Amino acid sequence: MYDFNGLNEECGVFGIWNHPESAQLTYMGLHSLQHRGQEGAGIVCSDGKEFVSERGLGLLTDAINKTKMSHLQDYQYAIGHVRYATSGNKGIENIQPFLYHFYDMSVGVCHNGNLINAQSLRQELEHQGAIFHSSSDTEVIMHLIRRSKQPTFEEALKESLRIIKGGFTFAILTKEGLYGAVDPNAIRPLVVGQMPNGAYIIASETCAIDVLGAEFVRDIHAGEYVVINDEGIRVESYTEHTNTAISAMEYIYFARPDSTIAGKNVHAVRKASGKRLAQESPAETADMVIGVPNSSLSAASGYAEEMKLPYEMGLVKNQYVARTFIQPTQELREQGVRTKLSPVKDIVHGKNIVLVDDSIVRGTTSKRIVRMLKEAGAKEIHVRIASPEFMFPSFYGIDVSTTAELISANKSPEEICEHIGADSVAYLSVDGLIDSIGLDVDSPYSGLCVESFTGDYPAGLYDYEADYKANLSDRQKAYLDQNKQYFDSEGNLNV
Amino acid sequence: MYDFNGLNEECGVFGIWNHPESAQLTYMGLHSLQHRGQEGAGIVCSDGKEFVSERGLGLLTDAINKTKMSHLQDYQYAIGHVRYATSGNKGIENIQPFLYHFYDMSVGVCHNGNLINAQSLRQELEHQGAIFHSSSDTEVIMHLIRRSKQPTFEEALKESLRIIKGGFTFAILTKEGLYGAVDPNAIRPLVVGQMPNGAYIIASETCAIDVLGAEFVRDIHAGEYVVINDEGIRVESYTEHTNTAISAMEYIYFARPDSTIAGKNVHAVRKASGKRLAQESPAETADMVIGVPNSSLSAASGYAEEMKLPYEMGLVKNQYVARTFIQPTQELREQGVRTKLSPVKDIVHGKNIVLVDDSIVRGTTSKRIVRMLKEAGAKEIHVRIASPEFMFPSFYGIDVSTTAELISANKSPEEICEHIGADSVAYLSVDGLIDSIGLDVDSPYSGLCVESFTGDYPAGLYDYEADYKANLSDRQKAYLDQNKQYFDSEGNLNV
Amino acid sequence: MYDFNGLNEECGVFGIWNHPESAQLTYMGLHSLQHRGQEGAGIVCSDGKEFVSERGLGLLTDAINKTKMSHLQDYQYAIGHVRYATSGNKGIENIQPFLYHFYDMSVGVCHNGNLINAQSLRQELEHQGAIFHSSSDTEVIMHLIRRSKQPTFEEALKESLRIIKGGFTFAILTKEGLYGAVDPNAIRPLVVGQMPNGAYIIASETCAIDVLGAEFVRDIHAGEYVVINDEGIRVESYTEHTNTAISAMEYIYFARPDSTIAGKNVHAVRKASGKRLAQESPAETADMVIGVPNSSLSAASGYAEEMKLPYEMGLVKNQYVARTFIQPTQELREQGVRTKLSPVKDIVHGKNIVLVDDSIVRGTTSKRIVRMLKEAGAKEIHVRIASPEFMFPSFYGIDVSTTAELISANKSPEEICEHIGADSVAYLSVDGLIDSIGLDVDSPYSGLCVESFTGDYPAGLYDYEADYKANLSDRQKAYLDQNKQYFDSEGNLNV
Amino acid sequence: MYDFNGLNEECGVFGIWNHPESAQLTYMGLHSLQHRGQEGAGIVCSDGKEFVSERGLGLLTDAINKTKMSHLQDYQYAIGHVRYATSGNKGIENIQPFLYHFYDMSVGVCHNGNLINAQSLRQELEHQGAIFHSSSDTEVIMHLIRRSKQPTFEEALKESLRIIKGGFTFAILTKEGLYGAVDPNAIRPLVVGQMPNGAYIIASETCAIDVLGAEFVRDIHAGEYVVINDEGIRVESYTEHTNTAISAMEYIYFARPDSTIAGKNVHAVRKASGKRLAQESPAETADMVIGVPNSSLSAASGYAEEMKLPYEMGLVKNQYVARTFIQPTQELREQGVRTKLSPVKDIVHGKNIVLVDDSIVRGTTSKRIVRMLKEAGAKEIHVRIASPEFMFPSFYGIDVSTTAELISANKSPEEICEHIGADSVAYLSVDGLIDSIGLDVDSPYSGLCVESFTGDYPAGLYDYEADYKANLSDRQKAYLDQNKQYFDSEGNLNV
Repeated sequence: MYDFNGLNEECGVFGIWNHPESAQLTYMGLHSLQHRGQEGAGIVCSDGKEFVSERGLGLLTDAINKTKMSHLQDYQYAIGHVRYATSGNKGIENIQPFLYHFYDMSVGVCHNGNLINAQSLRQELEHQGAIFHSSSDTEVIMHLIRRSKQPTFEEALKESLRIIKGGFTFAILTKEGLYGAVDPNAIRPLVVGQMPNGAYIIASETCAIDVLGAEFVRDIHAGEYVVINDEGIRVESYTEHTNTAISAMEYIYFARPDSTIAGKNVHAVRKASGKRLAQESPAETADMVIGVPNSSLSAASGYAEEMKLPYEMGLVKNQYVARTFIQPTQELREQGVRTKLSPVKDIVHGKNIVLVDDSIVRGTTSKRIVRMLKEAGAKEIHVRIASPEFMFPSFYGIDVSTTAELISANKSPEEICEHIGADSVAYLSVDGLIDSIGLDVDSPYSGLCVESFTGDYPAGLYDYEADYKANLSDRQKAYLDQNKQYFDSEGNLNV
Repeated sequence: MYDFNGLNEECGVFGIWNHPESAQLTYMGLHSLQHRGQEGAGIVCSDGKEFVSERGLGLLTDAINKTKMSHLQDYQYAIGHVRYATSGNKGIENIQPFLYHFYDMSVGVCHNGNLINAQSLRQELEHQGAIFHSSSDTEVIMHLIRRSKQPTFEEALKESLRIIKGGFTFAILTKEGLYGAVDPNAIRPLVVGQMPNGAYIIASETCAIDVLGAEFVRDIHAGEYVVINDEGIRVESYTEHTNTAISAMEYIYFARPDSTIAGKNVHAVRKASGKRLAQESPAETADMVIGVPNSSLSAASGYAEEMKLPYEMGLVKNQYVARTFIQPTQELREQGVRTKLSPVKDIVHGKNIVLVDDSIVRGTTSKRIVRMLKEAGAKEIHVRIASPEFMFPSFYGIDVSTTAELISANKSPEEICEHIGADSVAYLSVDGLIDSIGLDVDSPYSGLCVESFTGDYPAGLYDYEADYKANLSDRQKAYLDQNKQYFDSEGNLNV
Repeated sequence: MYDFNGLNEECGVFGIWNHPESAQLTYMGLHSLQHRGQEGAGIVCSDGKEFVSERGLGLLTDAINKTKMSHLQDYQYAIGHVRYATSGNKGIENIQPFLYHFYDMSVGVCHNGNLINAQSLRQELEHQGAIFHSSSDTEVIMHLIRRSKQPTFEEALKESLRIIKGGFTFAILTKEGLYGAVDPNAIRPLVVGQMPNGAYIIASETCAIDVLGAEFVRDIHAGEYVVINDEGIRVESYTEHTNTAISAMEYIYFARPDSTIAGKNVHAVRKASGKRLAQESPAETADMVIGVPNSSLSAASGYAEEMKLPYEMGLVKNQYVARTFIQPTQELREQGVRTKLSPVKDIVHGKNIVLVDDSIVRGTTSKRIVRMLKEAGAKEIHVRIASPEFMFPSFYGIDVSTTAELISANKSPEEICEHIGADSVAYLSVDGLIDSIGLDVDSPYSGLCVESFTGDYPAGLYDYEADYKANLSDRQKAYLDQNKQYFDSEGNLNV
Repeated sequence: MYDFNGLNEECGVFGIWNHPESAQLTYMGLHSLQHRGQEGAGIVCSDGKEFVSERGLGLLTDAINKTKMSHLQDYQYAIGHVRYATSGNKGIENIQPFLYHFYDMSVGVCHNGNLINAQSLRQELEHQGAIFHSSSDTEVIMHLIRRSKQPTFEEALKESLRIIKGGFTFAILTKEGLYGAVDPNAIRPLVVGQMPNGAYIIASETCAIDVLGAEFVRDIHAGEYVVINDEGIRVESYTEHTNTAISAMEYIYFARPDSTIAGKNVHAVRKASGKRLAQESPAETADMVIGVPNSSLSAASGYAEEMKLPYEMGLVKNQYVARTFIQPTQELREQGVRTKLSPVKDIVHGKNIVLVDDSIVRGTTSKRIVRMLKEAGAKEIHVRIASPEFMFPSFYGIDVSTTAELISANKSPEEICEHIGADSVAYLSVDGLIDSIGLDVDSPYSGLCVESFTGDYPAGLYDYEADYKANLSDRQKAYLDQNKQYFDSEGNLNV
């Protein structure tokens, strides 16, 4: 349940080429991607000559209000972005898309994900006299493009994409075309759709395509970029060094349940993972199954169906955001949790419960939920996690990049069970996860990026390597010793 | 699914007496009641001497920001309100609680529900020289109290409560005490809880009690009022002419699923109604059951369990509010619906579906949902409504007060089925509803107010009578002819 | 210099009947009256059927923004108000015009001035059951009108105007007409103008007439009211108990220099008062004359011309408002004054200066200015005040209503000279003031209200009497003993 | 009168080193410089380690509110800026100071004036891969500094200052020191002051020094820069190619009257120019002298004194800003002017008037004022301009850079007289201006920059040359043919 456990999403991008309502469609597309970032949003539009930009902090509806939208009418080309800050601070200067005016062209650019060699690239560029105006990775690629000696924008883009490392997608708008790009592992997703009027769109998730009534065209694969212009659509590769490794996290909790990634619907994957979890770790004494809303409900219903147990609403999530400016006293802090999530006493009282959650990151929220349910009268609580133990940090666009934050880096399931006060705790196996998702790609882990469960980083570690290795816990080391690693620290396949 | 069908909720009230964190607790309580009103919110606080007030338009977090909250520190007594405008226009002057400063006392007052004789009372009062500053019913009771010749505030309140008609609850704060009152039919709910420190609270729903970690004390019954002051708590009756008739709508979709009304948990009632609906109207050819999120999910899971069908997420609701300032072209309007609710193609494609919804009011949303699902590839769609046909307007605090709005006032289920493009449509019976809720009160309809399904108005019609009777449709008339009416137009039991 | 000495202005009113641009003209009229009130502004418009209202806190441009103005298009009738709070607190609920919707009519109403029997009237009305929603005097007259048994609105208005006491003007809008009224002493001004298209306007000052390119029609005199409707314009008297006593303060510093009151231009009066002051109290050793900007510049140039001395800019007023949220340390507080007013070192250094100011109320600002000029190198500073000693509080709409605030209530000019560190201090005589203004009305003080200089209150004292008399200083008592008082405490002529 | 004639000021800069209240003092300093720019304001602070920035659009009080100021507490070093956009568009991204975070240092930088070779420098830098984030000249110098190969920041700054051309001052803050710099002609002013606690400040005008209670230390001269750090203050030259040419416009209308530039007080200069104008062009038939408020009042009083005519307030300026969102109909547009400036009928009626203004740029405002005064009854109007004919565009930081805007580029005084409807028009001579200012510098024009009156550009023309020369009018050409030009197009002295 990503709202509570500190796993934050990593931005959504959107782009559209040649539609008279480009800004409105971008707004609607971003709205459907809002779950990927709530800290800021922006839209860059163009009519092929002029480029305009609006952006702001907070949710889309706050960031881009009616007045701002009125500035974006009558443009046919647009890209947009919703932002969660995985890198860069939270000021307005980091809200994307960035719009650059050069003497020879204008460029709008935004991205999703995290560059793991951004820090070394920035330092090198600054040393050469470059001036950065934000702490965003997005600016790095713009500098690379502008310093490239390649004869065309497309060639300069390709060259730049080969220099950066990590998990990323880009949406770039010039008056020549709309460009989308995906990292060499396809860690972060990007899809292409087509509007009824023929206009092409690109988006981080298929839900944006569906919301607009567009048709799904294709996924952009590892190491590919797409060029959309008045001549149509063209997909190219900028590198041959690719290993498909789609982020399993997208399936587990980032993506919207109605999205489909690499042909697999997210809700269906989650429900399947719940069923597999029931097979792997049945809770025999249970009276009912409840899920932690919203992201774990699919898995919970799968678990319930497999176990033939009632699926109940034992926890209610307040659908209204609670701002954090009320600083309750220590006495009131516990109630503060309940403003987000409430147990349903009359449902759980006296019952043995299977509590399905999608993950445990720090363990603090799980502990609170278990306590709330027990206080509400639940007899037994069997925690079932619809993903493997979250043992390793992620550097590819998820906001968990230090070992110290991860309870599973140091505690076994049994220790965690005791820590959170549950009656049992069990996790889905890595194989169970892979099977539930059901990709059939000829790459390690069937084409998934499962670095947080295995410590195996398909795009390598780069700027993060030293710090990561210096802070490995005993439990992490033990795991790494016992399990095969497919990738080295530069993301090459180990032989 | 109340966000879409025009059934809007009718406000929530909260009050607390003698707690050092009264404003914060009121804020948290109101946050848990936010589903009852999103157009405005306010808090009135007192320390027994001074009274202060903060209020604003929109959601609680917008209406009462950090600065406003900082003005409400260090008060021990508070009432609060979240508002949906059933009567009165939408200006800030109608946002409650109202705070009145008189030469001899100050009074904070707010209410939930609708007074059906407010218009005639206002006119009479204005004729006597009274000046109203809002179009809110709340002001009427204040004028009645101030013009009463009774010797005490409590007596004046009692006298005034006997004059007003309709479905209502009040929360009133003076430096002498916190008062809560419930209409003579208990149409609208009000409950009492107690904080760990002994402080009493009153609230529209038990979820506010649970969120604050308080203990449920009791419901306030028909025709009762509660006085909370430094001497403790005292519940009295202001009238003996009572007939318990708790709004069935609260169970069907107003209340939060974790709330308990008159001893019946809302989620459990909804799930039971889904099961009963399956027994009454099974869809034999169906492959799966889906519910319209969020309010129909409990009923849908009940239907699925009873039918032993998979319960799937075939519709996804965007958890982020979409502001309405984007006025899409006609071409984009259809997509506009999808920004709120999306079908999950990969789930519904090629399937026979039971679509469970809590109600059909105007039919427009149902039509859109059915079309969306068909466009997404659903084969058959069997609509199952977890409440009876919504044939009659409501005047007791629900925003459906004209016959013309109600599709069931003019169309049979078969006609509606054709209108919305479904393969079958069936409703829960009135008896099925009553049984699913399971009250056991010795009053008509076992103590429920089911006026929208039966045209039987337990609190009478008063100012609405002439217009209501003049506009009855043939279908309504036919129903009324064939079914016994327990109440006359003044709310007395027919004999 | 009213910005600094605590003499605050007392609101401005405006009204227009039957012009297609009524809201815009009201906005422009209020802008020209902005100096009369900066705490809030509002406009009520009507098209003869609907009434709409917009208002807000702060300067007109903040209070009524573009969006609000867009709500006021297409109305032909309007009144408007800029507010300084002489009574009532500063909340939005006190911003005028108030707009009342009754079952039988709507009324917009605003006023300038202060009712001195408002407190006793409120208490009496509340005792009868009336509910007040603001602390503004304006509401009192509305209650009086609504409770009147008179057969017409105009008769009810007349009756109400006879009940209230003090210095006031009203602008009232109904669908029947636009009404303006002036107190029985004409303490506060109200004028009528006519637009090129024939539409009549009313305003607190003639500058509003000039700014709109309208023609001046007439002043509304003591005890008169004006009715403007589709039949034209009609001026009537509501009382025969009148004594003209126009506020001398309007000439001295409230009104804009381009305004003309009772036929006397304000700048010309001020310049004449400066000349008379030079005759009465020449500063023989002076090298130059400087005025305290902005309100004292006219008087200073008059003094300079009469003395044949150079008129110099020795003080510069920052034309930009400095908000008060910077709370400088004690060390910085002195600099804080300079952010409003700066001495011009190169002008004043080594010079003997006549410093002309319009008044000394508390003396704190004069002290600071003298010190600033001395620090800037001025040799001698001869303070000349272009009005008499401000010895008595004012209750008729000026924000100085307690004796304790007034330095002249306790100190002689010599003591004040020492207190503020000047080399000499002299005031204009009462006769000098009366002659400079030059009214020729057959009433005490030639038709002026000079209560602050003489303790002679033409409209009486009413609710203020007890407190005023209990707090008289020895110096005030001595003055009253030695000078004839024309009026008794109910405003009747002493015989 | 700069508010009306389109002559807009060109920003103000401020800096302070080592004062515990650095942000507050910067705020107060900027407030005194507000007349130099009202489109935006910003402050950058540092404590020697961290750098923080706040900025915003509009007046200082809007741009930097209470919350923003609270972020700037507890810093000892600060620079600030008020902005009028002479180049660059009006977005927030152009509001200065700019704050740059590099891997090796942070730099805050802001500037006043205009670089005339910025466009060619930008293009060259972009061609080398530089990315600009604003359209501001300020960014150019930052790129130059960062690309410099000089070993120290100070050397890099010197090198960069030698590359840029035009009229400019800079304030730059690093953790090493506070830097101020002035262009090689000292066209734009910069002064140094010292606070009572010893802290040094720099500012565009001395009024900022006076307002803070600081002592004036010295002007920064042509081609100098100042370094203020913990070792004290040090003034150096970065070039020997200097020709002092202080902008005469600063005296004529930009600077505040209490400021002193190069030893000459602005008010005194203006008054002297009024006297000289009376000697050169007396209006023999006049009854009185009036000035266009506010900037022409000093000159008008000088003219009146010299002519021994009364100095009257014949025009009143509304001290409150009127926002422009009211778009009056054509009929109301004329009234719109009066919302800013009103004639005082009772003063001007039937009189022969000398109307003193500081300049005529486009002539539109003069025309309106003359008409207003005539409509108000003035008999004769003799326009006297306290500066020479404004014949040539300015490129050094004034917002008049095209010939087409200048009425004097095409019309003689007689033609202008007829155009604006006056009875006579006369200008101060160039010699009269130079004498009134009274500098005694051994440079052309006694050390003044009078390019707008002579077409003689001391800093050259650079990027503006081609366009300027292509658009010269016949009247301009005739003037240039008849008058000696001291400077060539690169700013070198002609020999």
